[in-house]
Amino acid sequence: MRQIVIGLLGAGTVGSGVVRILEDNKELERRLGAKVVLKRILVREPLRERTVAIPSEILTTRAEDVLDDPDIRVVVELIGGVDPARAYTLAALRAGKHVVTANKALMAIHGREMFAEAARQGVAINFEASVGGGIPILRSLREGLASDRIEQITGIVNGTCNYILDAMTRTGARYDDALRQAQAAGFAEADPTLDVGGGDAAQKLCLLALLGFGERVDPYAIPTEGITRVRAFDIAAAKRFGFVIKSLAMATRTDLGPVLRVVSAFVPQTSVLAGVHGSYNAVLVESRALGRSLYYGRGAGMMPTAMAVVSDIIELCRNVFTHDVVRPPPQAFANVEDVTPQPMAEMSHENYLCVHVKNVPGVLGRVAGCLGDHGVSVRQVRQELPTPGGAVEMIIMTEAASDARVDAALGTIDRFEDVIEPTHRFRVVDPDPLESP
Amino acid sequence: MRQIVIGLLGAGTVGSGVVRILEDNKELERRLGAKVVLKRILVREPLRERTVAIPSEILTTRAEDVLDDPDIRVVVELIGGVDPARAYTLAALRAGKHVVTANKALMAIHGREMFAEAARQGVAINFEASVGGGIPILRSLREGLASDRIEQITGIVNGTCNYILDAMTRTGARYDDALRQAQAAGFAEADPTLDVGGGDAAQKLCLLALLGFGERVDPYAIPTEGITRVRAFDIAAAKRFGFVIKSLAMATRTDLGPVLRVVSAFVPQTSVLAGVHGSYNAVLVESRALGRSLYYGRGAGMMPTAMAVVSDIIELCRNVFTHDVVRPPPQAFANVEDVTPQPMAEMSHENYLCVHVKNVPGVLGRVAGCLGDHGVSVRQVRQELPTPGGAVEMIIMTEAASDARVDAALGTIDRFEDVIEPTHRFRVVDPDPLESP
Repeated sequence: MRQIVIGLLGAGTVGSGVVRILEDNKELERRLGAKVVLKRILVREPLRERTVAIPSEILTTRAEDVLDDPDIRVVVELIGGVDPARAYTLAALRAGKHVVTANKALMAIHGREMFAEAARQGVAINFEASVGGGIPILRSLREGLASDRIEQITGIVNGTCNYILDAMTRTGARYDDALRQAQAAGFAEADPTLDVGGGDAAQKLCLLALLGFGERVDPYAIPTEGITRVRAFDIAAAKRFGFVIKSLAMATRTDLGPVLRVVSAFVPQTSVLAGVHGSYNAVLVESRALGRSLYYGRGAGMMPTAMAVVSDIIELCRNVFTHDVVRPPPQAFANVEDVTPQPMAEMSHENYLCVHVKNVPGVLGRVAGCLGDHGVSVRQVRQELPTPGGAVEMIIMTEAASDARVDAALGTIDRFEDVIEPTHRFRVVDPDPLESP
Repeated sequence: MRQIVIGLLGAGTVGSGVVRILEDNKELERRLGAKVVLKRILVREPLRERTVAIPSEILTTRAEDVLDDPDIRVVVELIGGVDPARAYTLAALRAGKHVVTANKALMAIHGREMFAEAARQGVAINFEASVGGGIPILRSLREGLASDRIEQITGIVNGTCNYILDAMTRTGARYDDALRQAQAAGFAEADPTLDVGGGDAAQKLCLLALLGFGERVDPYAIPTEGITRVRAFDIAAAKRFGFVIKSLAMATRTDLGPVLRVVSAFVPQTSVLAGVHGSYNAVLVESRALGRSLYYGRGAGMMPTAMAVVSDIIELCRNVFTHDVVRPPPQAFANVEDVTPQPMAEMSHENYLCVHVKNVPGVLGRVAGCLGDHGVSVRQVRQELPTPGGAVEMIIMTEAASDARVDAALGTIDRFEDVIEPTHRFRVVDPDPLESP
């Protein structure tokens, strides 16, 4: 039987999952018609107890044992983070090895460098597991929708954010409590900033836009709204109006160029995205021929991510055997254009505004008047009962208006004397409007 | 530039869509690195007006012009139905041509014959468009989840059924009215039997089980429940209990073998499947490593289906260029075992029972007693107000019990003197139960 030798960098959670799947060789061999031999694994602590038994002789603490071994054709990078993953990955590519990686930060921030080196060496770099864990979303964009034109991508791509918002929605919990609970359940890091601040979603969004639009965007150029500002009050108000709050990573093609953003938005309860609970991920794609399609599943975790890594390994191995290692789509990334994302200012949304005002006569008229002056129409207003301190939460649902107009109106409103704190604003996003039955 | 010559059988709705996508050659050539030349199209009426302009010299009414042309490497079968599609497809395979088809009936009923001939000739037969229209569900099962083990598949795979049930849910319409409206809107055939009776879903379920489990089942051996028995009353009752009614095609692996069925079931409103509206399709997969994943999109229509066909053409062309035409997974179908599906009797479900009884004392006790005698526990009972005729709809939600027990109990209950008509029974299916937050 043919065989292919691979090496792993890292044997943490995902790495252990990969080892476990590779051990179950029978199914793999049947699918691939070949044997995958795992020769070397780079680890920091060879003596550490692991969830899978790994023969100690294949563990090494020296990266060269993997990177310089001429037998090894495929290097699987599962260290995460930018350093030293970047140096190791480049070294593997330079040595003419194919690479599989689950590293979204590396591919989103240093993708250009990786693709260029891979193209120079005539090798491939696969990164399915970097977005949506085990969901084959990159593969679907690349192969399944190969003949289509992607117009918009709307993703729930951060499991931590979705877990917290879903818990708040289902139990009425406050943000802080839901975060603590997510941490206790292992769905949020001790320092959750990258997740709850939207940075992680922005990196994944870059990779989705790369596959979907064939354009590369700097993840740091993407406006991101975290979920830390979401209050139990907003969640309850959303529910009364028929919405749930979701953290969405969105990329839209426009005539001027792509608009990318991570927003905490009001999504209709009828949307298929409203049914994405817990730490699940989902990516809703709008394309010219297919229309809407959605890919949903576990966005993280040992086995889902490991499964995506092994699927990438299988694909690479098949291509190695057929000498078809540089199929056009994945490797065409070396020539992809860098683009500056367009600002959101001209995007049009309905909005939920919660204006915290003193309970004095005429304040509603002043707020509504200011919105009108900026061309923002009010659809509905609800005023909560005044609190003991005499303040009122005034909830306004607006008609669709450009972000620029809403921003300008809020800039004025929030300076009103009777307005106690900056207005809470959530955009309404309806990526799959119901058709009339 | 390299080129590959293809021929089409049929230029109806999907065929015209394929022609339209192939005309937009630029994107395709970029993706494929080759030119796809459409040389011949078999049609019945060459002079008919079509939605796309096709040069008349490539139209023919003689199948041999496509099947016997040595230039043509790939034949795309879009005639539908079993005859003459079966004979043409076999002829194309025997002539050593690769085949792309959107024909679920052909592949579900005569798949064994097709795969055997393809294997003999060393050619490939791709059929992504036969299930879920443009949703890349077969490709995801084959490639994205290549290293995983599929345990259960739950699909909304018939757009007509989903359109009708969704319209009934949203407007309160009766089945007959919703069907007429679906026919007027082009979402149901003049003779809707194959759709609303569940036969179409059973064929697609066969193909999902083939890809997911590597087992072939005769579509006629699958128990199917149509949607014709669903009443506005049941839909309203479902809503009150927190459910929607969906037509589901389900395949489950058990120790004894696969259980396949098409059922009209109560699905919790919190399920991601409850968010599948209108004529959309969705397939929820439960697999060992990945856990749950879902693939959603338009299950029919000109451009979605055409897109899936062209994605298959692209894949075949790539493989032709790399001489890798018989990759293991798709072509391994020739060796797939035929299995007899297991009966549903031992599957366990909660149930909604609507027992239509005379409003006489003691009837609830007799019905509940009979359920208890058969080991079926009652969770909740609601009795509707008696109608003028003095009859009552008694709604019973049961605890989980095997189908065999429920069937036996209903066999007795429906012979009670006070029971006016056969009990309406819907199983509760919760393919994605909420995890505790």
